[in-house]
Amino acid sequence: MTIARTICCGFLVVIAVGTLLLMLPFATDDGSWNSPLVALFTATSAVCVTGLIVVDTGSDFSFWGQLIILLLIQVGGLGYMTTTTFLILLLGRRFDLRQKLAIQESFDRPFLHGNSRTLIRSIIATTLVFEILGILLMLNVFSKKYGTMKGLWYAIFHSISAWNNAGFSLFSDSLTGLDDSLTINFIIPLLIIFGGIGYQVIMELYMAIVHFVTRKRERLVFSLNFKVVISTTAILLLSGTIIFFLVEYPNPDTLGNLDLRGKILTAWFQSVTTRTAGFNSIDIGSMTFAGLLLTIGLMFIGASPSGTGGGIKTTTLRILTNCTRSVLRGNDEVVMFEREISVPLILKAVAVVFGSTNMVVLITFLIYLNEGIFHPSFFESGGTSLQVLFEVISAFATVGLSAGITDKLSAISQLLLILTMYTGRVGILVFMAAIAGETRPRVVQYPEETLLVG
Amino acid sequence: MTIARTICCGFLVVIAVGTLLLMLPFATDDGSWNSPLVALFTATSAVCVTGLIVVDTGSDFSFWGQLIILLLIQVGGLGYMTTTTFLILLLGRRFDLRQKLAIQESFDRPFLHGNSRTLIRSIIATTLVFEILGILLMLNVFSKKYGTMKGLWYAIFHSISAWNNAGFSLFSDSLTGLDDSLTINFIIPLLIIFGGIGYQVIMELYMAIVHFVTRKRERLVFSLNFKVVISTTAILLLSGTIIFFLVEYPNPDTLGNLDLRGKILTAWFQSVTTRTAGFNSIDIGSMTFAGLLLTIGLMFIGASPSGTGGGIKTTTLRILTNCTRSVLRGNDEVVMFEREISVPLILKAVAVVFGSTNMVVLITFLIYLNEGIFHPSFFESGGTSLQVLFEVISAFATVGLSAGITDKLSAISQLLLILTMYTGRVGILVFMAAIAGETRPRVVQYPEETLLVG
Ligand SMILES: [K+]
Ligand SMILES: [K+]
Repeated sequence: MTIARTICCGFLVVIAVGTLLLMLPFATDDGSWNSPLVALFTATSAVCVTGLIVVDTGSDFSFWGQLIILLLIQVGGLGYMTTTTFLILLLGRRFDLRQKLAIQESFDRPFLHGNSRTLIRSIIATTLVFEILGILLMLNVFSKKYGTMKGLWYAIFHSISAWNNAGFSLFSDSLTGLDDSLTINFIIPLLIIFGGIGYQVIMELYMAIVHFVTRKRERLVFSLNFKVVISTTAILLLSGTIIFFLVEYPNPDTLGNLDLRGKILTAWFQSVTTRTAGFNSIDIGSMTFAGLLLTIGLMFIGASPSGTGGGIKTTTLRILTNCTRSVLRGNDEVVMFEREISVPLILKAVAVVFGSTNMVVLITFLIYLNEGIFHPSFFESGGTSLQVLFEVISAFATVGLSAGITDKLSAISQLLLILTMYTGRVGILVFMAAIAGETRPRVVQYPEETLLVG
Repeated sequence: MTIARTICCGFLVVIAVGTLLLMLPFATDDGSWNSPLVALFTATSAVCVTGLIVVDTGSDFSFWGQLIILLLIQVGGLGYMTTTTFLILLLGRRFDLRQKLAIQESFDRPFLHGNSRTLIRSIIATTLVFEILGILLMLNVFSKKYGTMKGLWYAIFHSISAWNNAGFSLFSDSLTGLDDSLTINFIIPLLIIFGGIGYQVIMELYMAIVHFVTRKRERLVFSLNFKVVISTTAILLLSGTIIFFLVEYPNPDTLGNLDLRGKILTAWFQSVTTRTAGFNSIDIGSMTFAGLLLTIGLMFIGASPSGTGGGIKTTTLRILTNCTRSVLRGNDEVVMFEREISVPLILKAVAVVFGSTNMVVLITFLIYLNEGIFHPSFFESGGTSLQVLFEVISAFATVGLSAGITDKLSAISQLLLILTMYTGRVGILVFMAAIAGETRPRVVQYPEETLLVG
């Protein structure tokens, strides 16, 4: 079995186990059996850390059901972090010598030495540190409002959900009711950002802090990955906040009725959460079309590689941007931070974007077709085309923000969303490679010929 | 002045002259002065061979107004064909030796020998041959229905409009009233297809026919450009027809009430025209969401380079597809028809798609914002977000199909659509290069470093 197929099967097994558990009566609030579709949808959404829901997590699942969902989130999040980190290390073996040296340079940091056991331990430790910190910091807010035991459970659930960018919440209105709490507006966003920024970047950040504290003499050299991820994340978070603020400022249903501090905090929270976490502190259904389009764009870009987030990833966006800059400047190479980007990496970025776009368009098309022909009541009762596109991109980028239509879609459309979440989570390239099966690289060298473009 | 700026200014001058002429009283049907915005919109739409309209071409313009529009279409279409053909020849000078040889090989055909005067003459001759053939073949149908003089004018107008993929029609319902005429369903599509396929491809096709007729001994070698354009065009036309047929089959407002022959012909016509011409024989506003999404996809892809059509072009799509295939197969090069594609060409394809997507998203965002805040009656009176996206992509790919909202948009949004048509016509890369101005390619060589993608 190829690596791609192993990963795909691994996720399938966890989803299958989760579905069976969530169907059992002890998982539901009223002790009845859950329908297979609801259980499958919820398990997939949890394992794929998406957060789209067809029933309310807080009121329709029992404590045990919620615990299973939380475990699925943790397994899904950790599983993804470790597999992608390994994949990247494995991929390094396929490059030629010059590229290998470049990879070694960028990975030549203590945390990537040693064997895979050490690596997994380190990833689990990082996860635990952040999650426990999150619980401790949020405990105060939640226990004041809901009492000690319930507050603790809320803190645990939301800390793990936030770190894994899962977007599951025990409140039926997500975090809309908490939109004024400074604590929530900074602790949850920090968990989301660090969870989505990728293991390597966290390690480099940690090393930099150690370096700074111990006042070492040598100059600190950051990897290209670190620089690209940090700068792109910062740009996206900042511009997202500003544009959300400006666009939704006059909208009385979102920011309009808040004071200036509330407006800024809410715009910031929405900018953070849209990029892959999927909590919402304002009602998505009330947003302006401009706000929805911004949301769709940020969701599609998503977080950074090897983190718990989805989307095409910050680094992919950056490679495309710099390709365009190179063409305009008349250069034949793509350069970032004074480093050249190899051709295979550019091809990979193209494949990620091309595959993702096709997947999103195909699924949207199929849902339009299915709801339009076999289930016309959906569009007739006010469902819009933009809501469907929104839901599909949210599923694909494992964001979990909802335009409020997931539970109104027919069973086939929900199955399509399940497939979309799954594809988005295992990664479009891994998914396509799993379908393609074993392939042999071409050995023949062909002559070059040009053709007209653009 | 850079080449890019020269091209941009050239189009601007023609649009300015056209606007002034169309404002004059002799251009309008009732002899009044036209508003500057209407004249600017119509002139831009004609020069950019788009076909979006804010007033009805057949009833609101006099014969002289229609003649000016037709001349603008012809100047715009020819200007684009000649400039792009030259640009491609010019670009050939920038490649290195190996690429230069490849280009020479692909261009080493009699029609590209000789000086630029010969080339322009050849392009004009091709245009005239096709347009006159179109007029002769359509004359019969139109004169039977509208009398000799009016029929002749209709044949001339629609032949030139079809060859230039302009989408302007003298009928207020475009070609909806003609949907059963076999002549119209084959002559107009053939004009559209040949106009949009590019000058080089037509020449190679012509050479192939000559070769076949004269029964020459040597084996005929087609260029890579020819093979890619012909195969991609065929695939898009065929799959477009089939999907339109299947998707709109049950829709009583489009194909539903036609007989089988009518259904097939209309699906075929729509598949041809959507890719850049912009005539419609069914009402776009009545299409299903699935049909609209298919239309948006086909419009965005568009026609082939150096033809009269717009969009990201068939060759660009093909390069992206083969990039993805290479990544899945583990190859480091992109190959088509046993020929390797150079890295600068891949970068150019990425830049075209990235620039186009950003332009479309930006303009859509601005129109959402403008109509939402300053002109709320648009969305309140039933305008939808998908209609706006449709109109923007139609403008950018110079298609000219309309969801019926162009004349309902506010002045600022119409100006944004004018900018979009203009950008789509001069080409997104030329437009960006004109803004960027003079650039010097980088001479420093940087070391390679990898980063995480996908
Ligand atoms: K999520
Ligand atoms: K057109």
